[in-house]
This record gives sequence, C-alpha cells and structure tokens, in this order.
Amino acid sequence: MSAHVTEKSRDLRPFFEPRGVMLVGATRTPGFGYILPLALQRQGWGDRLFLVNPRGGELHGMPLYKRVEDVPGEVDLAVIIVPAPVVPEALDAIGARGIRHVIIESAGFAEIGEKGRALHDKVKKAADRQGIRVIGPNCVGVINTTNSFSTVEIVDEALRPGPLAVIAQSGVFGNIMLDGLHQRGLYVSKAVTLGNRMDVNECEVLDYLHDDASTKVIMMYLEGAADGRLLLETLDRVTRDKPVLVLKSGRTGAGRAATASHTGSMSGEDELYQAMFAQSGAIRAGSLEELIEMAQVFTTQPLPAGNRLGILTSSGSMGALAADAAVEDGLVLPTLSEKAFEKVRSVAPEWMNVKNPLDVGPSGQLLTALEALLGDSEVDMVLSISVIPFAVFREFMELGISVKDFLGNAAEIRERFPKKPFVVCSIGDRGFLEDMDEAVGPNTPLLNSPEIAARTLAALHRYKAIRDSK
Amino acid sequence: MSAHVTEKSRDLRPFFEPRGVMLVGATRTPGFGYILPLALQRQGWGDRLFLVNPRGGELHGMPLYKRVEDVPGEVDLAVIIVPAPVVPEALDAIGARGIRHVIIESAGFAEIGEKGRALHDKVKKAADRQGIRVIGPNCVGVINTTNSFSTVEIVDEALRPGPLAVIAQSGVFGNIMLDGLHQRGLYVSKAVTLGNRMDVNECEVLDYLHDDASTKVIMMYLEGAADGRLLLETLDRVTRDKPVLVLKSGRTGAGRAATASHTGSMSGEDELYQAMFAQSGAIRAGSLEELIEMAQVFTTQPLPAGNRLGILTSSGSMGALAADAAVEDGLVLPTLSEKAFEKVRSVAPEWMNVKNPLDVGPSGQLLTALEALLGDSEVDMVLSISVIPFAVFREFMELGISVKDFLGNAAEIRERFPKKPFVVCSIGDRGFLEDMDEAVGPNTPLLNSPEIAARTLAALHRYKAIRDSK
Repeated sequence: MSAHVTEKSRDLRPFFEPRGVMLVGATRTPGFGYILPLALQRQGWGDRLFLVNPRGGELHGMPLYKRVEDVPGEVDLAVIIVPAPVVPEALDAIGARGIRHVIIESAGFAEIGEKGRALHDKVKKAADRQGIRVIGPNCVGVINTTNSFSTVEIVDEALRPGPLAVIAQSGVFGNIMLDGLHQRGLYVSKAVTLGNRMDVNECEVLDYLHDDASTKVIMMYLEGAADGRLLLETLDRVTRDKPVLVLKSGRTGAGRAATASHTGSMSGEDELYQAMFAQSGAIRAGSLEELIEMAQVFTTQPLPAGNRLGILTSSGSMGALAADAAVEDGLVLPTLSEKAFEKVRSVAPEWMNVKNPLDVGPSGQLLTALEALLGDSEVDMVLSISVIPFAVFREFMELGISVKDFLGNAAEIRERFPKKPFVVCSIGDRGFLEDMDEAVGPNTPLLNSPEIAARTLAALHRYKAIRDSK
Repeated sequence: MSAHVTEKSRDLRPFFEPRGVMLVGATRTPGFGYILPLALQRQGWGDRLFLVNPRGGELHGMPLYKRVEDVPGEVDLAVIIVPAPVVPEALDAIGARGIRHVIIESAGFAEIGEKGRALHDKVKKAADRQGIRVIGPNCVGVINTTNSFSTVEIVDEALRPGPLAVIAQSGVFGNIMLDGLHQRGLYVSKAVTLGNRMDVNECEVLDYLHDDASTKVIMMYLEGAADGRLLLETLDRVTRDKPVLVLKSGRTGAGRAATASHTGSMSGEDELYQAMFAQSGAIRAGSLEELIEMAQVFTTQPLPAGNRLGILTSSGSMGALAADAAVEDGLVLPTLSEKAFEKVRSVAPEWMNVKNPLDVGPSGQLLTALEALLGDSEVDMVLSISVIPFAVFREFMELGISVKDFLGNAAEIRERFPKKPFVVCSIGDRGFLEDMDEAVGPNTPLLNSPEIAARTLAALHRYKAIRDSK
C-alpha cells in the first residue's frame, strides 16, 4: 500500500460497488473493448457506464467520449484497457477528473522485462501523485455478483450470487477457473484478479472480504506473497472467521521461474509458504482440482465436531482408496457404535461385513446405512461413495426409475443431521454422474474422486481444529 | 496356482475365447441372471450360449436346461452366478461335463468371514478334484473385445476394441471404472476382474496379457499381491515389453483393513509394494484419476527420448502448476534451443516472454509455438495447456468459429513429430472441454488437470528409463 493512501482511498468498496464507471479504451473493433461495454449493459449498468475513445462516435447505442474530462455524471471507478504506453497519461486525466479507484487491465508492464518495468514505475508515480488506488495492471479486474458488476469477461451464468470469494493473482487463470465453477455448483460473491499488484494486494482484499457479509469462504491462487509477514498476519486474522483455501504455485525452481516472468513477482521458498499457511490457519490445496473440490465442500458443509470419518460405499475398493487418503491426512475411521452396528446388521444380508468403511455392495441398504452412520455418535462426518454399474442402472431407467429414485430420500435423511459434514462421491458413466449431481441437490457436493473427497473432509476438520485453537 | 494345473489347463484362453459358454444361474426374474444372457445374445453369442436353471422353461427365446449334464454342444467355459452354498455341487457337475474353465461370479465366500471361508475351502477342493481353473469367486468375470465376449455387465459402447487391458481385483470397481473409460477415449482389449483369487491370480493374467497381441498397455487395480515374489518377477518380465500401470490401495492401516474384508486377502506393508513396483518397472499411480489419465497417455503416446519437457500455455499460472508437478516427478524444463527461440520470437508480440514454459497468452501464436517446441532438439515431449476465457470463445462461436478452427492445424503439426509425446490439457466450461476433446482427435489425450498431465508425462519417461536399463 502506498504512502499516499488515505482513510478514504483505503476503502476498496468503489472497486466493487461503483456509483459510476468509466471505461477508457472502448473500441468498435472486436476485442475486449467492444465486449465489455456490451456485457455491462446487459448486467444493467448502461446508465452508469461511460465510454472513452479518442475517435468519438457511438458504440452499442452509447456515446464514445473523446477525452476523460468530457465524461459527465458521477463516476468513481475507471477501468483502463488501452495499450500500456498510454496508461500513464490516462491515469493523469482520470486523477484530474477526481476518480480515486482504477482497474488497469492492460498488460505489458513488469511481466515483460526491463522496458515494462520502466513503464510500471511511471504508472506507479502517476497513481501516487493523484492518490489513486490501482488494481492491476495485467489483470481482468473484479466481479461483484450482489450488484451484477463484472469487469471480467465471464458468462452470465457465472454471475449468480453465491458464498465463495475468489482471489486470483493471474487474470487469465481467474477467468478460466470462474468459467467452470458454476457448472460445479460453485457461485461467487466477489472475485478479484490482482495481476502485477502495483498497489492493491491480496492482504487488503482478504481484509475486505473478511468484512464482506456475502462471502463465507475465500479461495485464493497465489504465485508469491506481496508481503510475507503481512500475509501471515492477515490470514491469521481472517481465518478466525472464514476459511481461506490457497493454491500456491512455485513449489519448485521451474515453477518459480515460470511465475516470476508471469506477473513480475519473485516467489519465495516453498517451505516458508508451507509453514506460513499452516501457522496462519489457511488451508493449502495440493492441486487446482483439489482447490475446487475443497471449495465445493467448504461452501456447503458445516465444520465437523471431530476427526472421525464414516465411509459408506457400494464398492469396497473405492472405500479403501478413500480410507487411505483420509488417514494420511489426519482423520480416523472409528469403529461403529453398537447402536449403528445393530441398525445396519438387522437389515443387512449375511454377506455384508458391518464395519467402517461400510461396504453395502448391491444390498440396497444404502439409506439405512446412511441413517446409521449420520446418526452414529462415534462419527463426526460421512463420505458416501455411491456407484452402480451403468448397465444395471440403465435397466432401472428403462423401468422408469431415475437416479433420484435410486438415491431415495437421502437428501431428507441428510437434513435430519445438519451438523455433520456429508459428501457424496461417484464415478462412472458421464450422463449418470450429471443426473446424480442434480439428484443430490445443491447442498451436498458430488465429487468425482474418492481420494480428493476424503481429503476435502480432512481439510474441513483441519480448519476446524485450527480455528478452535485460536 | 494349484498343483492340479496341467499344461492344458494352464492356458487361460478358454476364459477369453470360449467355443461355447454355459451360464449356471440364468433366471427369469430381474437381476444379473436375467440380463447377462440378453447381453451375450446381443453380442452375438446366442448360438454358443447355454442356460441352466433347475426350473427349466425358456428365457429370451432360449431353452433353460434343468441340469448341467443336460446341456448339449461344445462348451469349454462355465459362468456360475448361483448363490454361494450351491456352488460346490455346480462345480462337480461342471467338472463331470468335462469343462475345465469356470468363472464364479457368486459372492459370499472368504470375504464374509468364517462361514464363507469354509465354503471357499469346499469349492477349492471341488475345483482341484476336477482339475478346474477358476476365476473368482466374488468377481464379474472377463471382457474380450476382439470377439465381443463379456461376462461383465457393461454398456455396449465400452466393447469397442482398444489397446488397454484392465486387471481389477474387485469386480464392482472394475465394472464402474470400465463404465467411464470409453467416454475418455479409452477402449479395452481384455478386462479381468479377479475377485477372491481362489485360483487364477494377477500374475497368470499378466503373463497372458503379455502374450496378447491386442494388448499394448496394462492397467491394474490391486489390494494385495497373491504372491509378492511372483508378482515382482512377473512385472519385471512383462514391463520389458508392455507398460503396467498400477493403483494399489492399502497404503494405510485403515485402507488395508477395508480391503482385507473386501476380497478376503491380507494386504502387505506399503513400503514393500512401493519398492516392488519401482524395482520391477511397474508404474504406480497416486490416485484413481491419475491411473486413468496415465492410461490415456500411455495408450496414445510414444515413449520420450529423454526427460526434457516443453510446456506451452495460454495461462502462465497453469504453466507454473504443471512445471512444479513435472519437476517434482523427475522431469526438467530445458532452455529452448536458439532455433526454436528465434522461430517464436520472430512472430511474438513484444510482451511475450519466449522461454519454457512458453506462455503465449492471447497472442494467437499457439501453432507457431507448438511447431517450435515439437521441433526443438532440446525438447523430448510437449504439454500444451490450451485455455481461453469462455465468454471470448462464445463470441468466436457466434462468428461461426469452432474449437477446431481455434486449434487450427495442431493435429497436423503434431503428426509431423510422431516420436515426441504430446498431451493437451484444458480447463473451463464443460461444453468447451467436450468440443475440445473432439477437436484434438483420438490420438492426443485431452486431460483436465495441469498437474496430473505433467505427472503422466513424467511417468512415461520413468517407464522408458526403466525399460532401457533392463
């Protein structure tokens, strides 16, 4: 944060809740400067949007103002998408217009080397001179689903409000990830892509999201910390109230070299990051896929009372894969209570071995077993691996039996035990999985990997334990 | 293998290429005994299929023979699906009929405890007495796509012939996994589910697949080795010619406990397995998902000349994630050769940092970069991470530009460098990924995780290095 930051400009709100937006670099030729105004119009921002292009004229039925100073109306946020070399003068004009919050989406700064770094310094000086707060450069800006404000090129479906906030250091990465999230039931409250972090960094954004009522869980992709000590302190503070899931690249020299060029920052040593995350209570994901599946679980499930996992499965092998992953990540698989054991035993066929993991095979006793495990005082959370040979299921379908019928009143049973985390995992035919996803409903995540499903529950417990110790 | 095994019965061929098949336990009530005859008829086995049910009558237009001894015709394989307690007498009758190969799909043996173990011994004695080779019990049998023979309840789409052989200890697991493989472009030559391994075990099957001309790659799910030393020797032999990809559960006590009950075998300590796989040249997968993605790469790509990976990406961050995973698994990211560097530099916009990983961003220079990397003498294999914000792509689509147009002649360029492994990874909108999958074609795997994609290439190199050292 620069020295020029005042109490007023410290507030990041105008980035997310602008009263009026100026877009510097709107264009009539295909590209981002052409699409973004269209998207903002569609999102209901037409009357608070002002486009700037030195040639003037019209775009999508809106006037193109030739100069920043020509723009009328109440504007407190500017989005810059002009080529890097003309950003400094744009910033001067924007500052003169009284605007103190600017998103610079343009690339071509510190990430491209010497020449870019000189330009970076020039822009930085202009911003400081004008007391302007900057997100970027080399980013795609922000999303706020509460007011349908998005400077990110994102499909409309992704703008439905949800509990997940996303912080991505890289613009493209954030954009691509957001493309897939809504198809996995993940909807965002806010999203921020930070780019080169000339000014606003992940710590300020974390604090902002900490206070943001619509955000329940924070997901962050980092290549390196802007300020390690500050990040540690910030994470320690934020994770007292909200889980922060982190994917950090640069574990190896090659990974660090890749990112150093990318957003112009040097990554630190991985061991230090590992220690920082553990100490601060942030939950680190081992891969992009794990990050996303963790978010699915953290946004929908309560925190578990303890580390005791019950596994219910119709494939003993997949139960074993999940058990391995769970135990490696610190969970235990308790012996079932006598009550739960008896409940299952009383309906189970002779061949069924009533234990944990509980393999119900083709017994058809999935629901009784689910009820027994969720109701078991020895069990803090339940993973159900629901698989069925598709050829068998297809016959059911021919008899008019849907996935929903197959699952029965699992959702209803689950609702009777709202305090226990519950995750479903399935594998197999793609169409079956899609039906399954719909059948389990929006409050139960359907994951596609027994190992990652177990790890997400372990992460949920890890977060709970850290939070309790604070 | 039992002492009674003769040179003739050692041959596993009748399991996969029976001249005639007897199904003991066909039923007119819905269930496996009802579906399997239908499926075999559909696969063209109607005239070589004989159904046994003590009540007699007809099923799907075929006679139900009351007793095994009533069955006419040349039959050299029996499939048993009657309840466990009547299996011993069925086996006696089958033996008396001169049949020496039997698949016992029935469950309820060693996997259910004391009582089941007694039954196991009884069946084992009957088989030995009759000189019968047994696959199972507690399995779903075999698939041979060459002659469309399948005792597994599997959708017809999965029966298209392909280069991958599957060995699964557990029947359900094999079944479920096979359900999804064809949707990821993976087609099998043979599949075997071993169940409790009363007789035939993974070693014999590995040897059989070693000799099987239609099998190029073997994928195996194991809970424990039937015979550790024999498995080590067998893997060492088979991997001289064909890669064997292994997923082994039971890394932890909980995982072992889960599997011990499941197929009645005690798993050994994981460290021993880890050493065995490394020593023998088998490639161990870290998860089910990794196993499948490895199979996608091993079945389609050549072995690399060395461990030097070139990464091409349109997201620097994803390039970094892949670089981390690659280097952790033993690959190196070489500096590009001067020739490749110049080729890319000459067309690259100023902001592009020409290095490895090569982040082409939105430059549109994907194809030039791909050609440069594949043609680079410093690079042994290439991973291309092709991502694009979906909102941008959707506009292309509206202009009539397809994913295929977007990818351009990537497939053609790839064909000019047939000796270098090449894998594509993409992330984002589900529909886009499906189009992408089709566009890259059947000879290039499209993977969904930058980290696993990198690891599969590392595995390909690891296998090459081991094989060279033999």
